[in-house]
Amino acid sequence: MSAPVLVVGSVAIDAIETPFGKVDDALGGSANYFAAAASLLAPVGIVAVVGDDYDLGRLDFLRARGVDLEGIERKPGQSFFWAGRYAYDLNSRETLETRLGVFADFDPVIPERFRDAEWIFLGNIDPTLQLRVLEQVRAPKLVACDTMNYWIERTPDALVRLLAHVDVLLVNDAEARELSGDHNLVRAARWIRDRGPDLVVIKKGEHGAILFGPDATFFVPGFPLEDVFDPTGAGDAFAGGFLGYLAHRGSVTAHDLKRAMVYGSVMGSFAVEEFGLRRFLDLPASDIRARVLEFRTMTTFELDGSHA
Amino acid sequence: MSAPVLVVGSVAIDAIETPFGKVDDALGGSANYFAAAASLLAPVGIVAVVGDDYDLGRLDFLRARGVDLEGIERKPGQSFFWAGRYAYDLNSRETLETRLGVFADFDPVIPERFRDAEWIFLGNIDPTLQLRVLEQVRAPKLVACDTMNYWIERTPDALVRLLAHVDVLLVNDAEARELSGDHNLVRAARWIRDRGPDLVVIKKGEHGAILFGPDATFFVPGFPLEDVFDPTGAGDAFAGGFLGYLAHRGSVTAHDLKRAMVYGSVMGSFAVEEFGLRRFLDLPASDIRARVLEFRTMTTFELDGSHA
Repeated sequence: MSAPVLVVGSVAIDAIETPFGKVDDALGGSANYFAAAASLLAPVGIVAVVGDDYDLGRLDFLRARGVDLEGIERKPGQSFFWAGRYAYDLNSRETLETRLGVFADFDPVIPERFRDAEWIFLGNIDPTLQLRVLEQVRAPKLVACDTMNYWIERTPDALVRLLAHVDVLLVNDAEARELSGDHNLVRAARWIRDRGPDLVVIKKGEHGAILFGPDATFFVPGFPLEDVFDPTGAGDAFAGGFLGYLAHRGSVTAHDLKRAMVYGSVMGSFAVEEFGLRRFLDLPASDIRARVLEFRTMTTFELDGSHA
Repeated sequence: MSAPVLVVGSVAIDAIETPFGKVDDALGGSANYFAAAASLLAPVGIVAVVGDDYDLGRLDFLRARGVDLEGIERKPGQSFFWAGRYAYDLNSRETLETRLGVFADFDPVIPERFRDAEWIFLGNIDPTLQLRVLEQVRAPKLVACDTMNYWIERTPDALVRLLAHVDVLLVNDAEARELSGDHNLVRAARWIRDRGPDLVVIKKGEHGAILFGPDATFFVPGFPLEDVFDPTGAGDAFAGGFLGYLAHRGSVTAHDLKRAMVYGSVMGSFAVEEFGLRRFLDLPASDIRARVLEFRTMTTFELDGSHA
């Protein structure tokens, strides 16, 4: 048995406060958000660690749609817990509490069943561990990777070593600026691409995301929502839509990459519409297709005769 | 003689400091930026006021491409002067000096030659004066309007009265939020549309702009530039591209509006590439067409078979 998409990251519990409400025990973590989105497009396997307090039954909705949870190791101790509060405009957040629990000693061992996975997402963990994951997979078709300011500041050398083995780096605009030391995103993307990744996706929250590649730049907006409930996990859901779509297609043409960006933004927009993962619990394919069509109407224009 | 596009606004001198350099006497003002962009697409007439210190010969490049300057009144006194300094990231600026000069008593009288203009842009001036302009034009096809926080805070009633007579309000995101009292841009746009304008364009600087209309929402990114020299006037150049394109087409279909947004963003991107108006002094049509094509590559995607 195998899954074409492998995600290595966190499976956590989040306590989230936004101006619109509060939840104490939302399903969280990068691997959960990624898998919830990607599994709507392609089969996914998760490698993660949880404590003996984690109710894996709550992930049955993932299992039901073909997510392979056998790589989630259960260890004595507490699960990764994060508590945060968002400001009224949802653009800034404050971490109230972080308990790493068993995640502090996470050392991902990729089960044999996943070693032939072709589409790899390295969720936001220590870049040394991310590199170790890559040493265990046999022939990945595409390696995508996330990181954060914590690793950029503390382990920049390990991060740059990792980049040489990554095909797509997905980061937000602040991270791209900090990593490259350049405020301009075009130059920041080139700095990153010079260190390995053929493709750089810079996520800008409600402002959308930009793909910088060898041939072209592609822009996808954020879906304009009247009610944003909870921005948590939007970046991982974006990555899930992006990589899930490529795995579904089985190819990485220029057209596939553009559509993958759209599926990324579509999944990111669903993620923020409800607390935690709720919007993904029961999300029909028709809703996804409808939103892709809305993106097309919202961004695609026809040239007039002057360009004939 | 007449021009199909009429702009009423400021013709000024700017002193601008950015991290990349400094100019003491750049051509500035909303009417100048608007006309510099719009005149590349359609004939434009300007109504404005300058002091006896203004060298109108510096606007010969506009005259040469058919801009009608006869509506620029010259009065004894100083011209409108603005001095400002941009922070290193170019996203925030500090006003160092504002001398209104003869602009303080600007009371626009529309010359007979412009009263049949069909495409009207009301640059950022007192909304009471903007309304007075509309009383003087006979049969506008489309009235577009800019404003700013100064008027939103000081003359909100006059502004709302004006909105009832406006077809397109172009504002930036902060202005839309302040005007509507709603942080969410989708709801802010609806608030504005409920007060008159059929169309609302919300400009987001480097993040692009969104058109909210009766049928659909359309998104255009900012052009990703490696070197942004001077953001001054980008919003007015956007308005010039937007309205100039519609005047060039002579129609306002859904397709025209989408392309007008692209021409707006194209002109905004040229505006910021050099100090002041310099980029517009000699901008060949082929450069404009090339950038429109780049926007298309950057935003347009094809659906895969799943939507057939």
